[in-house]
Amino acid sequence: MALLYLSTPERAVAWQKIFADAGEEMVIGEEAVTDPAAITHIACWYPPADIARYPNVRVVISIGAGVDQIPALPGGVQLSRTVSSQIDGMVREWVVMATLMLHRGMPTYIEQSTREIWQAHAGLATRQTSIGIMGTGRVGLPVARTLIDLGFDVCGWSRSGRSVAGMPVYGERDLDRFLGQSNLLICLLPLTDQTRGLMSGAFFEKLPMGSRLVHAGRGAELDMDALHTALQNGRIESAMLDVTNPEPLPKGHWAWSDPRVIITPHIGSVTDYEQGARHVLAVIRADRGGEEIPGRVDQNLGY
Amino acid sequence: MALLYLSTPERAVAWQKIFADAGEEMVIGEEAVTDPAAITHIACWYPPADIARYPNVRVVISIGAGVDQIPALPGGVQLSRTVSSQIDGMVREWVVMATLMLHRGMPTYIEQSTREIWQAHAGLATRQTSIGIMGTGRVGLPVARTLIDLGFDVCGWSRSGRSVAGMPVYGERDLDRFLGQSNLLICLLPLTDQTRGLMSGAFFEKLPMGSRLVHAGRGAELDMDALHTALQNGRIESAMLDVTNPEPLPKGHWAWSDPRVIITPHIGSVTDYEQGARHVLAVIRADRGGEEIPGRVDQNLGY
Repeated sequence: MALLYLSTPERAVAWQKIFADAGEEMVIGEEAVTDPAAITHIACWYPPADIARYPNVRVVISIGAGVDQIPALPGGVQLSRTVSSQIDGMVREWVVMATLMLHRGMPTYIEQSTREIWQAHAGLATRQTSIGIMGTGRVGLPVARTLIDLGFDVCGWSRSGRSVAGMPVYGERDLDRFLGQSNLLICLLPLTDQTRGLMSGAFFEKLPMGSRLVHAGRGAELDMDALHTALQNGRIESAMLDVTNPEPLPKGHWAWSDPRVIITPHIGSVTDYEQGARHVLAVIRADRGGEEIPGRVDQNLGY
Repeated sequence: MALLYLSTPERAVAWQKIFADAGEEMVIGEEAVTDPAAITHIACWYPPADIARYPNVRVVISIGAGVDQIPALPGGVQLSRTVSSQIDGMVREWVVMATLMLHRGMPTYIEQSTREIWQAHAGLATRQTSIGIMGTGRVGLPVARTLIDLGFDVCGWSRSGRSVAGMPVYGERDLDRFLGQSNLLICLLPLTDQTRGLMSGAFFEKLPMGSRLVHAGRGAELDMDALHTALQNGRIESAMLDVTNPEPLPKGHWAWSDPRVIITPHIGSVTDYEQGARHVLAVIRADRGGEEIPGRVDQNLGY
């Protein structure tokens, strides 16, 4: 059993020590592979172009939380994404921050500051703000818990529509009803065939006028032109985006200079090197022991 | 028994209806007082210049959360400040938002956005961030609870030094030790003789290098020149201020244009008209029933 490592040299340095201490074999880069048949696990962002070169590969492990960059794997090859409570915690922090920033009118106060204007504006109370969270998984649930604790009215939307403690969850078919009652919409969905381009002009039209958008899913889920239109016609009042389309957001893009939009450069979560290595080790060991691998992704579902 | 109302005409309209419905007498403005001896309660921001004119006044009620604008009252006259769970909740929201904004580097990302630059920076994990909260009362405690739940390491500082569930609290004499371990300092203190000018150059020197400051207390507690020096020498990395000194912050003040400082125009809490009126009614009724009045302030302590 050996891991094929396909990522940056900086990360490799940290991983090498952890793998050596753990007594696990790790090969850095495809050019270093002498026996392709020995490779059983591959850790990467983008997998090898010709994965058939490794006849005994059992698991491909994305070194990030996303797997949308990984094409369909051959039958029998499992997929895992790096999961950790620290990643979940970082996304949760960002989403709670972004939600409060839109709720308390930070886009207006930041813009006023550039003109050195001291002027307070009335806002809604938390209990008057109905928050809709798309995606009620590892991050969505703790986000919901914190926002409920702060006094917001919170609903979820998920494929299954399975309600969870303290929060009603709408199912796939109830999207329109869910959107119709969301003053502030949070997107945490993984990128799949179903969610690509989901946030379109028709989608935004279903929100109440003057809604706010927090986006920490994937850039390709959002039609930025449709967002621009929704901002212009007042459907959306303000937005906070950690992911954009395209990404990185190029210089000169309208969203940079629109005071109603606050951009952060995909900082929701950052996998630290050590956590990534520990996740891969946990996958290798679970696989060896015949257990369910951590972070397992169903490629048909995309998460 | 009659209430003397000294505030804005807009607020008076809302209050009149609530007082009429409750069957309580309310006189709007000193010029409308025909019998000063009938006035038993006064609701105001600034009290009458000559309070001795009202020989039977029993309670002066600040229409805000602060009482530092009210001079020492004659013996036997009680003081109350408007308290409500909604005010507490709004300050808590603002403080949690501001803390996360500094923790996640929003001053840098807002500044980068003005130059249309997409660049992520590494930051500390919550568990590596030691937060110090000055003031562990009605707002400080729920702030602490939320921040602890988000994974931060949180300590308090209060006059009494009484520790509370889940959070060690330093007492008055341990200020230096408290400051020495605060990477991120939150000020929620009321303005008193002891806290006026508390945040001085010598005070900031006791913080670790690169600390961050969240200020939702009172402007006069902060020496803004000392803050400027602390930003210049790296003692303080960034600050978020909802109160300033002077306030409102005048055009041309350095803090408006310093990208390390984010200003909001005293939006932490806003008393809504109805809540203010309900608080005053509750004070009048408690006083009539011989009970402890809500929001009672000890003028010697200042809170």
